[in-house]
Formats: sequence, C-alpha cells, structure tokens
Amino acid sequence: MKNFQIALIPGDGIGPEVVAEGVKVLQAIEGMDASISFSFTTFPWGCEYYLQHGKMMDDDGLEQLKPFDAIYLGAVGYPGVPDHISLRDLLIKIRKQFDQYVNLRPVTLLHSSLTPLKAKTEKDIDFLVIRENSEGEYAGAGDWLYKGMPEEVVLQTGVFSRKGTERIIRYAYEEARESNRTLTSVSKGNALNYSMVFWDEVFAEVGKEYPDVKTYSYLVDAASLYFVTNPERFEIVVTSNLFGDILTDIGAAITGGMGLATGANVNPEKTFPSMFEPVHGSAPDIAGKGIANPLAAIWSISQLMDFFEEGQWGRAILHTIKRMLEDKEQLTPDLGGKASTSEVGDQFVELLKRLT
Amino acid sequence: MKNFQIALIPGDGIGPEVVAEGVKVLQAIEGMDASISFSFTTFPWGCEYYLQHGKMMDDDGLEQLKPFDAIYLGAVGYPGVPDHISLRDLLIKIRKQFDQYVNLRPVTLLHSSLTPLKAKTEKDIDFLVIRENSEGEYAGAGDWLYKGMPEEVVLQTGVFSRKGTERIIRYAYEEARESNRTLTSVSKGNALNYSMVFWDEVFAEVGKEYPDVKTYSYLVDAASLYFVTNPERFEIVVTSNLFGDILTDIGAAITGGMGLATGANVNPEKTFPSMFEPVHGSAPDIAGKGIANPLAAIWSISQLMDFFEEGQWGRAILHTIKRMLEDKEQLTPDLGGKASTSEVGDQFVELLKRLT
Ligand SMILES: CC(C)[C@H](C(=O)O)[C@@H](O)C(=O)O
Ligand SMILES: CC(C)[C@H](C(=O)O)[C@@H](O)C(=O)O
Repeated sequence: MKNFQIALIPGDGIGPEVVAEGVKVLQAIEGMDASISFSFTTFPWGCEYYLQHGKMMDDDGLEQLKPFDAIYLGAVGYPGVPDHISLRDLLIKIRKQFDQYVNLRPVTLLHSSLTPLKAKTEKDIDFLVIRENSEGEYAGAGDWLYKGMPEEVVLQTGVFSRKGTERIIRYAYEEARESNRTLTSVSKGNALNYSMVFWDEVFAEVGKEYPDVKTYSYLVDAASLYFVTNPERFEIVVTSNLFGDILTDIGAAITGGMGLATGANVNPEKTFPSMFEPVHGSAPDIAGKGIANPLAAIWSISQLMDFFEEGQWGRAILHTIKRMLEDKEQLTPDLGGKASTSEVGDQFVELLKRLT
Repeated sequence: MKNFQIALIPGDGIGPEVVAEGVKVLQAIEGMDASISFSFTTFPWGCEYYLQHGKMMDDDGLEQLKPFDAIYLGAVGYPGVPDHISLRDLLIKIRKQFDQYVNLRPVTLLHSSLTPLKAKTEKDIDFLVIRENSEGEYAGAGDWLYKGMPEEVVLQTGVFSRKGTERIIRYAYEEARESNRTLTSVSKGNALNYSMVFWDEVFAEVGKEYPDVKTYSYLVDAASLYFVTNPERFEIVVTSNLFGDILTDIGAAITGGMGLATGANVNPEKTFPSMFEPVHGSAPDIAGKGIANPLAAIWSISQLMDFFEEGQWGRAILHTIKRMLEDKEQLTPDLGGKASTSEVGDQFVELLKRLT
C-alpha cells in the first residue's frame, strides 16, 4: 500500500473550485485502486491570506510543505494584491526554493474541434514543452536607479548558470532519448548576445552525448510562428523560463485555451516536493459562480499520477478527458457547454470508473 | 519636386532579390508622379562583405548612411557568420545608433484565405504593433563569468531607461489618439519585477495625459494567446523590444507568414534616417532561385511612402498588394503560386499603374 501525502494550496479566485474537483478524482482512484491511498492537508495561503496577514504564506511555509510528496495548487492572484507580490512570494518562490527546475507542459490537442487552426487535427498537435523553471529571466535580479528623475534607468538581469542550463537541457535530451522523439531548442542568440549564445553552446555541447537524438534549433520568434503554422514540427521543445512561459500560452491557444492547460513543476531528484497546477489564473471575474472549467486541474492530476509512477492512472485520466470532450453538453460554458464545475467533476469521475 | 535619397542595403541571401522589386516599385512611382524623384545608392554590406573584410559594414558606415532620407534593407544573415555578429553589427547597430526607436509592424490580414485561423477574416485582424526598438532586452549588456568552469554563470541585462520607455509609450498614445484607436500595453510585471513593473508604471503615468485613449494591459503570455484566439481585441499594441519581436511573428503567423510581414524602423525626429525592411530573414535555402516572395519588401515601400508623407502612394501600394493576392496564379510558390520573384514585381507594377 502506497500512501501519498499531498499538500493542497487552493489559492485564490477559482483555485479552490477546481482543486476540489481534482481531489474528487484522487479520491475516486483511491476507491478503485487498493494499492494507493492519499492524505490531504490544506494550506489557506494566497491573496486573502496576504490581505489578513501581510504575507502570502507562513514564514516557515516552505518548511511546512517540505515533508509532502507533492503540492497541488489551484491559482494565485487577486485584484488589490500586485501580481509581482502574489506570484513571486508564493508560486515562483515554491518553484525556485524547491528546485522545481523542470516545468512540463504538454501541448496536446485532445479533440480536433478545440483548435482554432484550420486543417490541424489531433495528430498534428501533440508535443511537450520542457521549460526551465528556476532561474533565467525570472531570477528576479535587477536594479532601479534615479527613481523619478529624468535619468531613471531600470535593469532586469537574466541569470543563466552552467548548472541550471545544463540540467534542464540534459533532462530534455534524456526525455527525447527515452521516448524516441526529436528535440527542439528555442533560444534567441541573434539578439540576446550573452544568455542565449550560452544556451546554444550548452545545447550543442550536451548534445554530443546524445548522438541518437535528432535536434533542431529555433529562434523564439520563429518558434512562436511555427507553433501556429506548423505545430507538427515539434515533439519535445526545451527552452528558457520566459520563452517557455510565452510558448506554452501559444500552445494553449492552439489546443483549446487556458481551460485545458496544465503544468508540472518537477524536482526530478525528489529532494523537495514537486508541484502540479492548472496553468490558468485565478479568474476573479468568474470566481464563485461555479462555472470554472476544472479539466486543466484534472489534467494536472494525470501529471501527478505519472510523477508518482502510476502511469496507468495518468493515461486513464487523459483518456477520460478526451472522452468527456466528445460531448459538449457535459462541459463548462467556456467550452460551449452548460455544466457547472462540480457537475464536470462528477461526470468525470463516473466516466473514469466506467472506463477503467 | 521632392527628391528622396535612398540608401539600399540589399544584404544577404534573398535580400538583393526582393530589394530589386521594391526599387522597381519606387521607379514606377517616379514615372507616374511628377512631383517625386528618388536617387539610390547601394551599399554592399552584409555577410559576404564580412567574410571578405572582417566587418559587416565600413568603419565609417554610419557616417556614410547619415545623409540619406531613408534606408531600404533586404535581409541579413548567412550560414558561417554567427547571427549575433551579422545582426548586432548591422541591423541592430543601425536601429540603435540612428535612434530608430519606433518599430512599426502592421498585423493586417490582406486576404482572408491567408490566415490559418478558422473563422477569422480581414475585419478581425487589422492592428498595428509599436515595438520599442532601441534598448530594453536588446541592450546587449551582460557578463559571462567563470567560462568553462562548473560555477560558470551568464548574465543578460535588459536596460529600460525613463527616456526610452516614455518616448515609445508616448508615441503609441499619440498614434492611438490621432487614429482614434484603443491602445494595449503588453508587459510581464508579475515575473520581471524591475523592468516590467517600471514599464507598467510609465504606461499608467503617461496615460494620464491621454484620458481620451481607451487602454488595456496584457501580460505577454496572455497577449500571445489572444493574438491567436482573439486578434479582434487589438487595435494598437505597444510593447518592449523582445516582446515585440515575438508578438509580431505571431502576427505574421496569423496573416499569412513571413512572406507578408513588414517593419519600419523609425526615428520620428528625423535626426537620422529611418530604415524599412521586410521582416523575413535571408532564407539562404532559396536564395538565387528567383522564387523569393517580394511582397513583404514591397509592403515596406508602402511604409516608406507613408513616412515620406506621401500617404496616397502608401495606400495605393497596400491596395495593389490586396488585389494581387486575389489571384494565386500570379504569386510565388510560398503563397501557392507559380510566379518568380521578378514576375511578381512586374505584375505588381502593372497593376499599380492600372489602379492609380
Ligand atoms: C503567473 C505567472 C508568474 C506564471 C509565469 O509566468 O510563469 C504563469 O504565467 C505560468 O506560466 O505559470
Ligand atoms: C534578426 C533579428 C535580430 C530581428 C530581431 O530580433 O529584432 C528580427 O527577428 C526582427 O524581428 O526584426
């Protein structure tokens, strides 16, 4: 019997609503699979917590989270709390401090009706973006000089370490080798004359150890274009923190929007817990209405099960999501349906039980 | 009689081929409009020049260019010359040293058959991206420490000055006010905690002087998504150098590809010449075959004429491109036709004459 300890951070806006549905799925699995059990602990952190306590999480928050096997996060952000506080002091802090340096974001079209692209179907859009998740452009380093004066100047420094760059690129090569897929590096060496020249060098250098992996290199602007015009070119993409942020949103755009985008923040060494989250925001405009789409949050559970090396469940969840998408009626309004958040969750669980 | 002095930098690969067609168009205008004449001077700079002389342009290249009214550039870049040399020492150098701080990139769907997006037509995709073009992420500042050692670390610093940020944002507000369009700022304050927080502040501050302009603010990841899913949201977009680079390639993707993307690098004060260029690269794989699509380069001539305050010609050229696009037969292979580069140019000139 394996017991997995899961820390829940429902967060803000629609976060708690979608996390509740993900938990339903985990409980259903527990009911069906005698070899697995989960225990949940909820942490009330986020913007409301900030407004009450002046901080996004407890001072020893990271210590509290450390013993868990995984963190399941809803969404963070709220009007009235500046984003650079709400995100840097919770989401980005956990990613960095727990060395979750791998961000895994599938760009997979689950149903052909979902893409806004003419003439593209499921077989054209099915790849994985591996985003560097701990440093780079998001290092948070910079300076703000002569504030309010005419000579005011603001510096933002991306920090690319040998260790940080090499490990993400190596992770991507390993993944490409194991799954026998091509690997595309996305950078911008023609304009970012330090960081991206370095990135390209490391990509080439590590590549020498993987002569069996077929590689491509794209500039970020070209890659952004090809995500839209030729997504079938990509199998595995490895890129920097900022570029991964942008590219995976284009990936969401071509596969049905943010209601269907998931991301795993992984610490491969398991020194620290990894974190699973739908990529969408807290959507304060629809919070509390019971119409938030929980499928991205449920897809995160699929990634979580893969991470726990329970791949049969990961696949079963993904398969069930595909089946759900065949009938619009049972989906939330953003996908053209009429169902509520919890109805989608209930339906999902029923279908999962039926299919497994 | 107005005489405009134009410096031609055909550059590499397909650059000379498409510049030749643009020049044809200017000569046709000269033939039709007795009030205008052009004189051309060609500069042989680029990667071949680099391979022969060890530099991308003459040492006093900028001095040589300074007297001209405008620069018309083909494309730069060639296998064997690292991009960060070929571009930083020519294209980016001219943009910066001539203080061409405004990059104007129309995202306009000229014919509905060209977009890869379902259910979008000309009326949905018609906006202008105003990209900061002189500093920011492209400042070229950085450092490379402990090269080759385990503790190697590479820094890339974006430099956002008060002057540089304010002038591009002000330019965009002016443009929005004059043309009575909405203005959308694209930034990333939730992760880039110095530069983009500053950008947002300046956008809000300058906005106080333009209460008549309706504004929006998007994160760059969200904007990238909406360019694909909801391009009708945008009228004028103002953004940083790197974000503008990425966003305008998404813009190209939704309007028919790089064969139809143009950019004006403008020094509004006219202290220095401005530069007009198709956005596509030098495409060495098709260079010399006579099949490069010259329509982006011709669109650049439309932007050039607008800049010379000969808007009637700017509009006539754009209108003629639209008409050309109605008949695939007369287009280059990338647009599904069979015509050569120079046939497209000849056809274009004939049609322009017929239509004006
Ligand atoms: C919320 C924000 C800081 C975050 C990011 O930029 O990484 C989000 O956009 C994401 O992609 O997870
Ligand atoms: C060639 C390259 C340096 C350039 C840029 O990144 O600005 C190009 O992509 C562009 O958009 O004009």
